Amino acid sequence: MPQNVKGITIMRRADELALHTEAPGMLTRTFLTHAHQGAAATLTEWMREAGMHVRRDAVGNVIGRYEGLTPDAPALLTGSHFDTVKNAGKYDGNLGILLPITCVAEWHRQGRRFPFAIEVIGFAEEEGVRYKATLLGSRAIAGKFDESLLDKVDEQGIRMRDAISIAGFDATTIKTAAFNPEKVLGFVEVHIEQGPVLLNEHLAVGIVTAISGASRFMVIATGLAGHAGTVPMNLRRDAAMAAAEIGLYIEKCCSGIPGLVGTVGQFDVPNGAANTVPGKAIWTIDIRAESDDIRLAAVNDVMAKMKEIADRRDIHLDIQQTHDAISVPCAKNLQQQLAAAIKKNGIPVRYLPSGAGHDAMAIASLTEVAMLFVRCGRGGISHHPDEIMTAEDAELAAQVFSNFIEQFAHPTTDHHQGQ
Amino acid sequence: MPQNVKGITIMRRADELALHTEAPGMLTRTFLTHAHQGAAATLTEWMREAGMHVRRDAVGNVIGRYEGLTPDAPALLTGSHFDTVKNAGKYDGNLGILLPITCVAEWHRQGRRFPFAIEVIGFAEEEGVRYKATLLGSRAIAGKFDESLLDKVDEQGIRMRDAISIAGFDATTIKTAAFNPEKVLGFVEVHIEQGPVLLNEHLAVGIVTAISGASRFMVIATGLAGHAGTVPMNLRRDAAMAAAEIGLYIEKCCSGIPGLVGTVGQFDVPNGAANTVPGKAIWTIDIRAESDDIRLAAVNDVMAKMKEIADRRDIHLDIQQTHDAISVPCAKNLQQQLAAAIKKNGIPVRYLPSGAGHDAMAIASLTEVAMLFVRCGRGGISHHPDEIMTAEDAELAAQVFSNFIEQFAHPTTDHHQGQ
Repeated sequence: MPQNVKGITIMRRADELALHTEAPGMLTRTFLTHAHQGAAATLTEWMREAGMHVRRDAVGNVIGRYEGLTPDAPALLTGSHFDTVKNAGKYDGNLGILLPITCVAEWHRQGRRFPFAIEVIGFAEEEGVRYKATLLGSRAIAGKFDESLLDKVDEQGIRMRDAISIAGFDATTIKTAAFNPEKVLGFVEVHIEQGPVLLNEHLAVGIVTAISGASRFMVIATGLAGHAGTVPMNLRRDAAMAAAEIGLYIEKCCSGIPGLVGTVGQFDVPNGAANTVPGKAIWTIDIRAESDDIRLAAVNDVMAKMKEIADRRDIHLDIQQTHDAISVPCAKNLQQQLAAAIKKNGIPVRYLPSGAGHDAMAIASLTEVAMLFVRCGRGGISHHPDEIMTAEDAELAAQVFSNFIEQFAHPTTDHHQGQ
Repeated sequence: MPQNVKGITIMRRADELALHTEAPGMLTRTFLTHAHQGAAATLTEWMREAGMHVRRDAVGNVIGRYEGLTPDAPALLTGSHFDTVKNAGKYDGNLGILLPITCVAEWHRQGRRFPFAIEVIGFAEEEGVRYKATLLGSRAIAGKFDESLLDKVDEQGIRMRDAISIAGFDATTIKTAAFNPEKVLGFVEVHIEQGPVLLNEHLAVGIVTAISGASRFMVIATGLAGHAGTVPMNLRRDAAMAAAEIGLYIEKCCSGIPGLVGTVGQFDVPNGAANTVPGKAIWTIDIRAESDDIRLAAVNDVMAKMKEIADRRDIHLDIQQTHDAISVPCAKNLQQQLAAAIKKNGIPVRYLPSGAGHDAMAIASLTEVAMLFVRCGRGGISHHPDEIMTAEDAELAAQVFSNFIEQFAHPTTDHHQGQ
C-alpha cells in the first residue's frame, strides 16, 4: 500500500465534504439544512463503498454498520458530528467520521471481519448553531433526547419538529433512535484536538482522559462613571479596573494546576470613552477542569476573591451562572487499549483532558467512551477556516485507530472483574 | 438683602437658560444653532439689565462690558461658555456667565464702579460637539482661532463658515474678535468642579492651580484567539489579560501622586465570546497631571511597562498617541487674590488642579488666568443631566467672586517686580 494512502483519502474527503455548505466560500453546515442533507448523502455513499449498511434515524444521524463475524454481533461504536459552526474548519467532527470509514474500507477490501460489528455514526447535530441546543444527534442515540426541544424555533421561525419533518424524518419516533446498551461494546471518538497541546509537544495523537466539566458566569459590575480628568484616583469606583483585577486573579488561580483553565472571553465597557472613568463593565467567566473537585474549588476561590475585590473598590456585582456541566471521564480500559495501539506505532503516549465538549459526553450515558485526539496545526486554532491538520497525522491516527480495532477486547474494567 | 438672593437668581437663571435646547426634555445646545442663538439673546438681555453694554463678535461670543470709573479703562475679563455637550448639565459653562452677571447687577444697583472695566464673556463654543473642534470662542478672543477650521463640516453637511454666516456673523472678520492684551488685566473663570474633590472635603469652592496637561493613547493588542477549554493557561496569548495587567499598572502608577490621574476609559474585546480566549483587545489610555514633568514621567513609565508586559505575554501592541496637551498654570497672584477673597468668607482655602479643559486654557495666551471651582453634587457628576449644585454654593461663590473683584489689584507678579 502506498505511503499515507489513508491519510490522503481522509484529507481529500474532508475537502470534498466541505463543499456541502450553506455559505459559498466558507464552511457553514447546520442541522438538517440542504447542505447538511447533501453531506449526509455523501457520507452514506462512502460508507456503502466501505462495505457498510447505512441507515438514517429519526434525527438524521447517518449510521453505517460493518458486520462482524456473526450476524447481529454487538457493535463497537465510533463516529463524530457532521454539522459545523459558522465559518468552520473542515476537520472538527468530520474527521471522526471520515477516518473510521477509511479504515473500514481497508478491512472490507481485505475481507477482514471481527468478533464484533463496527458502527460508524455521523452525528447530525453537535454544535447547537441552528437551535441553540447541542448534542442533538448523540443524545438521541443515547436515549436522552429532550423532546421539549422539538418546539424550539430557528432564526427563520422554523420549529425543530417541522425541520425534521421537512428533511423526511419523523420526530414522533425519536425514541427509536436510542441504541440498546446490551448490543453496544463501547464508543471511541476520533477528533482534532482544537488546542495546541499536542502541537506544542510534537505529538501526532493523544488520549483523552476526560471531557472537562465547565462552569460559566456572566458578571455585570456597576461602579460610578466619572470624568477621567477630574476624579482623583482615590475617589474612583472604576468598574473596568475591578474587572481587570478579577480577570488577572482568575488567570493566576487557574495557572499551574494541570487540566484547569479559566477565561474571561467577553470584556466590555458599555459606551466607554477615553475621557470617562468606566461606571460599568460586563464580562464572562469560563472555568473548566478534568476534575470537578478542582473546578469547583477554583470557582469558589474566584467567587470569594471577586467579592473581596468588589467590596474593596465599592463596586456592585451582578453574577449569573449561565452554564454548569460535570466532567465526563473516559473509560480506563479503553484508554489503555488506545495506549497500546499508539505504542504499537512507536509514539510516546500523551494523556490530556478535553476542554471542549464532544459527542462522547452524551454517549457516555449509553456505554463506556474513549477519545483519540489528533494534532491541530496553526497554534491549535479551530472553529475557524484556518483549522488545519496534515495527511501524515491523519495517516498515523488511522493506523492507531486500526491497531485499536484490530486488538480490541471487550472492555471489562478491573472494577467489574473484582466484583 | 435677603439671604442667598444672588445664589437663587443664578440657579433660577440656569434653569431658564436650559430651556434653550435643541432637544426637548434634555439640554443640548451646540454652536450657533437656533437654541444657541436663543441663549445668546437671553444672556444679552440679562447683561443689559445689569448695566452692561453688550456686543457679539464674529464667532458669536456674547460680550458684556461694565465700564470702570474712567471710560476705556482696561478690563478684567471673566466668563465661560454657553454651548453644551449632548444631554448636558445646566451649570457646566453657564454658571461662569450667570454668576458674574448677577454680581455686576448688584454693583450696578449700588452705582458702584471700579478703576477697571469688567467684561463678562459668554464664549460661544468650548465643547467641540458640532465641529469636533473645541474652544472656538475663547481662541478667537485670544487671537488664536485656526481659520482652517472654517472649512469643517457638521453632521448635516454645513460648513462652519456658512453656519457663522447663517447666524448673521462674518467669518472673514474673525481676527477682529481678538482682544488687545494691553487693554486686559487678567481673566478669572468661575466653573462647576465636574469632579468630587470639593464635595468629598465639604468645601463650597476651590482655587485651580493649573489646567492639567493630558496625554491620550489608543492601543490595539493582538495575541492569539483560542478555545477557552482547549488552550492550557501556559500556552495562551490572551490580549485581554495583557490589557487588564496594563490597566492595573496605570491605576497603580497614577495613584498616590497628587494631581496625577490615569484612566482606561474604553476597553473592548472585539467579537468576544465566553468560550474564546481573546486574541484582540482595544483600549484607551488617558494620563493627566498638573505638572508636565510628572505626566511625562508617568507616560514613560507606563509605556515601558506596557512593552514589558506585552513581551512577556507574546502580545503585539499598536500604540497611537491621539492627544497631547501641556499644562496651563493659573497665575500665582490671581490665586492669592482668590485665596484672600475666600478667607474673607471664613472658608478654608483648597487648591486643586483642573483635570478637565476650560476656556481659561485658551485665554492664557492673551492674559494671566485664574479659576474658581464650585462644588459639584452627586459624586461630582457632570456632562450629564444629573449635574447639580446648590443655591447656597452659588451664593457663596458669588460672594467670593464679589470679594475678589472689589479687592482686585492689577496682577504684578513677584517675578516682574524683581526685574
